[in-house]
Amino acid sequence: MTVLAKDAIITLAHGSGGQAMQQLIETHFVAAFDNSELALMEDQAQLPLAELTLAGDRLSFATDSFVVDPLEFPGGDIGKLAVCGTVNDVAMAGAIPKYLSCSFIIEEGLALATLERIVQSMAVTARQAGVRIVTGDTKVVHKGACDKLFINTSGIGIVPVDRQLGARFIQSGDKVIVSGTVGDHGAAILQARGELALSGTLESDCQPLNGLVEAMLAAGSVRALRDATRGGVAAVANEMASSAGVGITLAESAIPLHPQVRGVSEILGLDPLLMANEGKLIAVVPAQHSEAVLAAMRAHPSGAEAAIIGEVTNGSAGQVKVSGPFGGERLLPMPVGEQLPRIC
Amino acid sequence: MTVLAKDAIITLAHGSGGQAMQQLIETHFVAAFDNSELALMEDQAQLPLAELTLAGDRLSFATDSFVVDPLEFPGGDIGKLAVCGTVNDVAMAGAIPKYLSCSFIIEEGLALATLERIVQSMAVTARQAGVRIVTGDTKVVHKGACDKLFINTSGIGIVPVDRQLGARFIQSGDKVIVSGTVGDHGAAILQARGELALSGTLESDCQPLNGLVEAMLAAGSVRALRDATRGGVAAVANEMASSAGVGITLAESAIPLHPQVRGVSEILGLDPLLMANEGKLIAVVPAQHSEAVLAAMRAHPSGAEAAIIGEVTNGSAGQVKVSGPFGGERLLPMPVGEQLPRIC
Repeated sequence: MTVLAKDAIITLAHGSGGQAMQQLIETHFVAAFDNSELALMEDQAQLPLAELTLAGDRLSFATDSFVVDPLEFPGGDIGKLAVCGTVNDVAMAGAIPKYLSCSFIIEEGLALATLERIVQSMAVTARQAGVRIVTGDTKVVHKGACDKLFINTSGIGIVPVDRQLGARFIQSGDKVIVSGTVGDHGAAILQARGELALSGTLESDCQPLNGLVEAMLAAGSVRALRDATRGGVAAVANEMASSAGVGITLAESAIPLHPQVRGVSEILGLDPLLMANEGKLIAVVPAQHSEAVLAAMRAHPSGAEAAIIGEVTNGSAGQVKVSGPFGGERLLPMPVGEQLPRIC
Repeated sequence: MTVLAKDAIITLAHGSGGQAMQQLIETHFVAAFDNSELALMEDQAQLPLAELTLAGDRLSFATDSFVVDPLEFPGGDIGKLAVCGTVNDVAMAGAIPKYLSCSFIIEEGLALATLERIVQSMAVTARQAGVRIVTGDTKVVHKGACDKLFINTSGIGIVPVDRQLGARFIQSGDKVIVSGTVGDHGAAILQARGELALSGTLESDCQPLNGLVEAMLAAGSVRALRDATRGGVAAVANEMASSAGVGITLAESAIPLHPQVRGVSEILGLDPLLMANEGKLIAVVPAQHSEAVLAAMRAHPSGAEAAIIGEVTNGSAGQVKVSGPFGGERLLPMPVGEQLPRIC
């Protein structure tokens, strides 16, 4: 089949189930994602279990839809985000991510060149994360029925039998570690929307974290992992405190912040602890393992600025507090509303 | 947490990652889908492999996004469709569907009561199909950024080691069976949109087909299965002919048609072979097994009107022909454009 013209746009026919859709899938998606399962062009992929499993291993299964605006931004695009987001959800279980699905909802009129760049970005990120995009779906809707492009990815990983992570395992005395600066993705999206009269070089931190997780688990014991996406560190810390029935106290001065993110936050009155990240995780680690895990993180490119930012307490069950540099404490509640819609 | 008021609408806060989203998920989604994996409220579900696997079994993995307009129609709604669509994709591999993910993209302002009906419909359909909705995601976008509600489901099933289905196994001499009347879903959606000045009782055929598939596989050997959704019987037959490098000839008079679908098609000049179905499959079966498989289908509620509608030939590789009642033949090409956008 012929490749579509460079200036082509997506039409309703590309979502029809017929020839135009087949051509789009074969020449643009199957070619980019390049694997034998997808190339069969069946409505589902068949994956050998023998490749995957030891007795007692578990499947990890996650899904995320991405509606970020704009589609492309410094440090990433909706395609990179869609691969990283689901890879990271799976990795937070201590799972080894293996397979992704990919489903596009496209607004009629989208430039094919834009779609092509985003698909290539997905392919590159999937290779980087060591996962294969093995099945997919394409829908096209009338102009105005969606905003340009939404992508859903779902992911399957294998949790080795000896790994048991979850907020329910968190105990008083554990240390809280963040893998790097917080709020970069939220601030980069704000800047990319042109809503800030700020020039700068802010980039999203969007990246797959499964490599970092493997390095951490090799270095020591970890109770729970969660990537700090929508709702930021505040949402993750509150979910963890609430699930485990413990308190969490964070030390404000220990939290790594990019100077530009600090600037944007101060100007706009936003709390970076509530801002979204797309390549940062929060780990809760037994105190005696915390230095070893932290050292392993700092030795990994995705965790160079990792820091211990707090600890788990047995008072104030379900509450998260932030201690200021001069000794005062404030409550950090679960975020209520929406700071930035369509951040991911 | 309290249940939201009956006349509540979805706001951007319901997609924030914060309290409002947690409340929506806990009181509406987790309650309806009712299973221990989802109730953990992690970003991914962990599924025991031991429950699933024998040596040599394979995973089947499928995804589909649903954008149907209107959200509710005679015979179904977007939620029922989202469960059936992915269950059926998985079942067409000869797999036993086990787990679904569910991801919502919601337009700000959607009535909570509408979402609630659709979620309940998903829960009922999942129970009927014997699958569990174990992980999910919720995004809310500004008014105008999507049309009311889109749902993605992804699904995992187990293909027992002794089942090998696929278009590549099709051989000349095999029989082509359809599980019932064709075009019902497409015609029902047309009618529900009010684009026809026709009154009638047309209902979508939307239903899970995994039970029917089990009955068929117990009765005899099957080469390939495909559900005839977008692009209808024409798209499926062409994909099969093309994958297998064979010809397929269908007998027009053998194809089951609901009288109202026949009427709508004649009035509008639509070919029912191109119209979408959401609860019908095409099976290719070795001739010596075809009567046994057909009998098993007719004995099942989802296949009562099943019929042998054609056969596989070794001439005209990749082509599908339809023979008329008086002996003439016409080519049935792969559909080119979009007959009905947002049919599923």
